Amino acid sequence: MSLIDKLNWRYATKRMNGTKVPQEKVDRILEAIRLAPTSFGLQGFKVIVIEDEALREQIFNGACQQPQIKEASHVLVFAANKKVTQEQVNEYIQDIATTRNMPLEALDGFKGMFAGVVAGDEQQNFGWTARQTYIALGVGLAAAAEEEVDATPMEGFSAEALDAILGLAEQNLGSVSVLTLGYRDAANDYLASAPKVRKSKENLFILK
Amino acid sequence: MSLIDKLNWRYATKRMNGTKVPQEKVDRILEAIRLAPTSFGLQGFKVIVIEDEALREQIFNGACQQPQIKEASHVLVFAANKKVTQEQVNEYIQDIATTRNMPLEALDGFKGMFAGVVAGDEQQNFGWTARQTYIALGVGLAAAAEEEVDATPMEGFSAEALDAILGLAEQNLGSVSVLTLGYRDAANDYLASAPKVRKSKENLFILK
Repeated sequence: MSLIDKLNWRYATKRMNGTKVPQEKVDRILEAIRLAPTSFGLQGFKVIVIEDEALREQIFNGACQQPQIKEASHVLVFAANKKVTQEQVNEYIQDIATTRNMPLEALDGFKGMFAGVVAGDEQQNFGWTARQTYIALGVGLAAAAEEEVDATPMEGFSAEALDAILGLAEQNLGSVSVLTLGYRDAANDYLASAPKVRKSKENLFILK
Repeated sequence: MSLIDKLNWRYATKRMNGTKVPQEKVDRILEAIRLAPTSFGLQGFKVIVIEDEALREQIFNGACQQPQIKEASHVLVFAANKKVTQEQVNEYIQDIATTRNMPLEALDGFKGMFAGVVAGDEQQNFGWTARQTYIALGVGLAAAAEEEVDATPMEGFSAEALDAILGLAEQNLGSVSVLTLGYRDAANDYLASAPKVRKSKENLFILK
């Protein structure tokens, strides 16, 4: 199947059957997420990868009563940095210098481009870092489809409750979206056989 | 090459060589963007696909002085709905009913879930629709890599100027990101041979 075929195959799976996704498939999906581009390359977020059943029960009861939380193989939480700090920028610049074998001074201009971001407040910073997580979410969705692993992106949860359960605020993080990975329970999911609804090309694209 | 290999091959191309991307590749990248999931499936955005050279010159001069705007084969502008309207929700619900051959009444519950969104103001609505465009951007980036087409995601432009040039505000749209499609000019792009910098797995993922 081509990527297009696989994107047509996938859908926002509402019921999963509990089957575990093979580790090498999970690893490739996570690697795609890791490789996803972000603004300035900063990757101002973390992805919490949850298999633990007790923790998933807690999330189900306290933050997101969707059955996939318990029926999925893995629950991924995309959590963005609330504040972009100078320390984080410095670490990133050091990473570039090391990876590319460059003197730090050669990156002074690039480093300076973060001044406005670091000067911003939490609301501004989180607005920006949260958007970046959606690029990784999109790449992760494509990678899951490529692996023929079902994946459900979710915004329908209490971020406040999820942050508390995972202790995210203490780590300068706020949850933005959830992606469950697993396999569809086609017999119990009415959406499994429902035709996909998307805008027509004519309605989505404006050609100039 | 696997998708992972292709994601390693791609990079935020700074210089492109003007070569046109074959139409069937552009079509597949756009189809992937069209198939990208969004919250509630609403797809509250449009993608402006620009080939016209005069328009690209105008964008370069007025909104985004990055050479890829002129050197790319196609310039895609992701523009999100400023306001989510009841009319738009009704159209979408009608689309579902038609596509899935369901009575409209069967969708009353789902339709009701949009009440809070429609009641929101422009700032709230645009904050939400803008995020959704990044999922499509991520899927589009993966699809471009799959096609071995270079792609550069950009936030570094004047949204106000770009909106004015494209007449977006009058269409209830605001530009969020730009994705240029084309082919790298490796000889003139210092980034073409630079090792990719990404957080380590240990630094990006928290396993639970």
